[in-house]
Formats: sequence, structure tokens, C-alpha cells
Amino acid sequence: MDYYSSQISKLIEELSSLPGIGSKSAQRLAFHILNMPVEQVEELSSAIIESRKKVKYCRTCFTLTDEERCPICRNENRDHKTIMVVEDTRDLAAYEKTNKYEGVYHVLHGAISPMLGIGPGDIRLKELMQRLQEDVEEVIIATNSSLEGETTAMYISKLIKPTGIKVSRIASGVPVGGDLEYIDEMTLYRALEGRTEL
Amino acid sequence: MDYYSSQISKLIEELSSLPGIGSKSAQRLAFHILNMPVEQVEELSSAIIESRKKVKYCRTCFTLTDEERCPICRNENRDHKTIMVVEDTRDLAAYEKTNKYEGVYHVLHGAISPMLGIGPGDIRLKELMQRLQEDVEEVIIATNSSLEGETTAMYISKLIKPTGIKVSRIASGVPVGGDLEYIDEMTLYRALEGRTEL
Repeated sequence: MDYYSSQISKLIEELSSLPGIGSKSAQRLAFHILNMPVEQVEELSSAIIESRKKVKYCRTCFTLTDEERCPICRNENRDHKTIMVVEDTRDLAAYEKTNKYEGVYHVLHGAISPMLGIGPGDIRLKELMQRLQEDVEEVIIATNSSLEGETTAMYISKLIKPTGIKVSRIASGVPVGGDLEYIDEMTLYRALEGRTEL
Repeated sequence: MDYYSSQISKLIEELSSLPGIGSKSAQRLAFHILNMPVEQVEELSSAIIESRKKVKYCRTCFTLTDEERCPICRNENRDHKTIMVVEDTRDLAAYEKTNKYEGVYHVLHGAISPMLGIGPGDIRLKELMQRLQEDVEEVIIATNSSLEGETTAMYISKLIKPTGIKVSRIASGVPVGGDLEYIDEMTLYRALEGRTEL
């Protein structure tokens, strides 16, 4: 890339190391940044480094936050007896967007995957079990509907069952607005199995 | 976005203001950044701000560079009597990748567009005309094959013709590997018009 000067090449290189950004997008982004007002670029640059430096895990639910405890765990109006277990902070955000969940969360930061060598000790499972020693009524397992997510769900439910705490799994089925024709057999099967009486 | 803490929301917001990055990609990028080692994030952040602060226009060809004159203009082995006129630095880079062009460049930073109110005075045209007072043999116009690019090419050629300097336009036609079936009529017409004898 010696047709770009070293600073520009460096920027393109850094940007293309980000996920989902190929060399063409990196170039487009780089030239966009080079044409932005300096103040805006300063804000972008400092948002990146400041967020990274300040981010930490919530002491209770392990979501990424910049405080000791995240806003959800600090919220007295939430139902702290119901814990939804998710794989990562983005999944938590996805459920928060529904505005339908009143409980709190527990972020595992991953899922059990023998293929990738990720075992129960590599995710925040021990921390979940510790939380269950307090007054918890239900654990809703909302790991992904992937092989790893299902494995993790099974593992956690087996771990929790003996404690007598209610364990549930979010429903699998046809997405709202989904056209049956285009939905895979496994999902259709799950939707049938999970049918509810009308 | 109050389900993310303020620093994380700020990062997502900054990232989603970049071109081609929607809110989903911004979230993915943000969490990737939050999980990167601090040193790497520092490099990314400083590449962004440093490149922006150091970047300037090459004194001769007006490409973006971090030096007084860009590496191409400084290169004694290039043919300084042939100037290729391009719309932006990325177009220059695209031609450099071919490794087939020995001349130098002139970067207009835009194209004439009456629609967008961009006139000949808004691009680096005056600077091009100044360069022609030195010993120049040929000006190759390599603006895009868009309406604006063609308008700009016509305008420049009319401006240069009276000086007696040779003016040429890069060929329009079917891209290499292109399937005729999927190519628009205008391109096919241009390819026919520009046919060369075998």
C-alpha cells in the first residue's frame, strides 16, 4: 500500500482488522475519517479508547458497564428474583428492547463449546451458581438456539434442578412475520413441539 | 439505549455515524473493541486521530498524504510529463494497484455536479491548469464513468485543448470477466463505439 502515505496506510490497516470490515470498506471509512472535522475525529477516537479503558463487568450480572453495578442490577423496580441467563451483553440489550422483561440478567460471556474447547469453567457459570444462593425464584435460560447455546442450556438446567429453583428455556419457534415456506425443518419441528392451546 | 451504560452507548453512537455502518454493525464493532486488548485499542484510536491531524494535500498533485509532497510526486523514476486526473485519492490508489501506470496524478477532490451545486471552482481544476504551464505532454482524464465524471471530463478537455497538450480519456467498455448478459445498454454501446481492430 505504498501509494498511500504511511499514516493513511496505518489507518486503513487498523480499520480492516475490525470484524466485518474488508479492505474496501476500510479504505472508504479511512477517507471518510480523513475528511471529517478534527473535533469529530477526536470524539470518535476518544470514545473508542475511553470506553475500552472504562468498561468493566457488572459485579452482579457481569454485563459490560462502566460502573460497579450496571443500571439494571441497581434498579430497585426490577424483579431481582428472576434471572435471565444470556450469552453476551448484546443479547441482554436485545431483550431490553422488547420492554417486556422485568427481571434481571446474568451474562455468561460465551457458551459451552467442546469444538472450540470452551468448557463450563470458561464462562461465568460459577458466578451464576453463587447468585442462586440468594433469594431467586426462576432462572430463564436465553442462550442462543445454536448447538452451543442448547448445550449450555442443558448443562445449566441440570446444574440448577437439584436446588429446586424453577428453570425455564425461552421458546423456539417460527419468528413473528416468518413465512413457513422459508423456515428450516428444525425450527418448524420445534414450533410444533412447543404449540400452545388456543 | 439506556440498557447500555453511557460510555458504551457513546461508542456505538460514534461508530454508527460512520458511512456504511448501521446500528447492528456498530454494536458488533463496539463489543469487539471492548473485548480487544487495551494496547490494540490504543493503536486504533491513535491511528484515527493521528492520521487525521497529520494528513494534508500533496503540494503538487493534491492527493492526501502526510508529507509536503506525496511519494509519487517525489519519485524521480515516474514520468512527470503524463498526468492522470482522478476524482479522489482512492481512484489514484486503484490505478496504482494495476502497476501499469508510470506517470503522475492530479486529484480533483470531486467532480463537477450542477445538481449538487459543485462547479469547476469547487474542485482542484485551477491547480491542474497551473501544472500544465510546466513541461506536460499528456493529460489522461480518469474521472468516473458517471454523469458527473463525464461532465468533468468534457469540461477539462475543452479547457486543455487550446494549450495544445494531448488530452485523453480512459476507455469505457465491458469489464474484464464481465458477462454481456448482465451489462447495461450504455456500457455495451460504449464498448461497441470504442472497439479496436484486432
